Amino acid sequence: MPEPIEFFFDFISPYGYLGATRIDALAHRHGRAVEWKPFLLGVTVMKVMGLKPLMDTPLKSDYLRHDKPRLAKLLGVPLAAPDMNGVNSLRASRAFLALRERDPALAKRFAQRVFQRLWVEGRDITPIRAVLDEAAALGADTAWLKDEVESPAGKARLEASVNEAIGKGVFGAPFFIADGEPFWGVDRLWMLDHWLTHGNWEPRPLHG
Amino acid sequence: MPEPIEFFFDFISPYGYLGATRIDALAHRHGRAVEWKPFLLGVTVMKVMGLKPLMDTPLKSDYLRHDKPRLAKLLGVPLAAPDMNGVNSLRASRAFLALRERDPALAKRFAQRVFQRLWVEGRDITPIRAVLDEAAALGADTAWLKDEVESPAGKARLEASVNEAIGKGVFGAPFFIADGEPFWGVDRLWMLDHWLTHGNWEPRPLHG
Repeated sequence: MPEPIEFFFDFISPYGYLGATRIDALAHRHGRAVEWKPFLLGVTVMKVMGLKPLMDTPLKSDYLRHDKPRLAKLLGVPLAAPDMNGVNSLRASRAFLALRERDPALAKRFAQRVFQRLWVEGRDITPIRAVLDEAAALGADTAWLKDEVESPAGKARLEASVNEAIGKGVFGAPFFIADGEPFWGVDRLWMLDHWLTHGNWEPRPLHG
Repeated sequence: MPEPIEFFFDFISPYGYLGATRIDALAHRHGRAVEWKPFLLGVTVMKVMGLKPLMDTPLKSDYLRHDKPRLAKLLGVPLAAPDMNGVNSLRASRAFLALRERDPALAKRFAQRVFQRLWVEGRDITPIRAVLDEAAALGADTAWLKDEVESPAGKARLEASVNEAIGKGVFGAPFFIADGEPFWGVDRLWMLDHWLTHGNWEPRPLHG
């Protein structure tokens, strides 16, 4: 049985959302499982890489504003344009990790709901209320989950997850690792697919 | 007759080189011409975007060190790892633009030679001697070309080319524009191919 594919995401990334709509089906076609792993772009991009947020970067921000809707269209999924001012994924990510310890399948459904809430419904995911509402819709124990999210253990879990990501060289979202091969970006799903099909980079006829 | 595809490049970019090995054949399959347009990553990345060079960026630099050789392998082309300390594309880009005014086809062959010199042979492209040697191999008038590269008009041509790129939102290399659609990265040739085939972003079954 081959190792699962690692899928590193941050709920605040629209490209992460787009990746989330695809990765499990892609992996499944290759008989592979997917482990979802949250990290924080604010830590990797700003603290570790020393860069400013993408949407504050001249030229690139214009490109991304054009690119996000066309990729969503091409993938056949809706994409909202929520006001991201003050939005962060801290509580949602801690909740995901707490849920994952108890029930990985439920945690994944929770993550899909959080992505959906922000990037399809355009609703905030920051407040604990929003996080608990999404968990409640799946029948999770919200009193327990609230304690987990606010506990030192809950915070430590996310810190460990971010450190794991950084230790594996993850810097942007979505980021996939399969058999040690890293893939950054939803626009590289073709390369991941190629790797899962062939398991090497020998020259082959490609589109382009 | 549809508009030519614009291919923006900087000789110092290995991904630009990889793009250069593909773009004309891809365009040709779609009955399209390609206009090669030099710009300077030092201006777009550092001055306009306010970022540091990619290879000075933690995490991303490690990813790129792994990624460049695997992409070259996949595309079936050689890729050297030259010492880039002090390497710049100023004179080579000015020479390209001077040659282009006289003979666009020859200028493209010159550009391919410059890419080859740096990214296949691993030899410097910075000194005027290197630039003139590559032009001489194509039978160009090197006395005239030397004057052009060092003249105010030669410098102004490159400045205009960089400004054209910035005006069109170009920030990284390679960068392609087809019918107004921008594509950044050799890893997005599949999207350019898709656009040239379909001319829209309607949902379609995709790899991934």
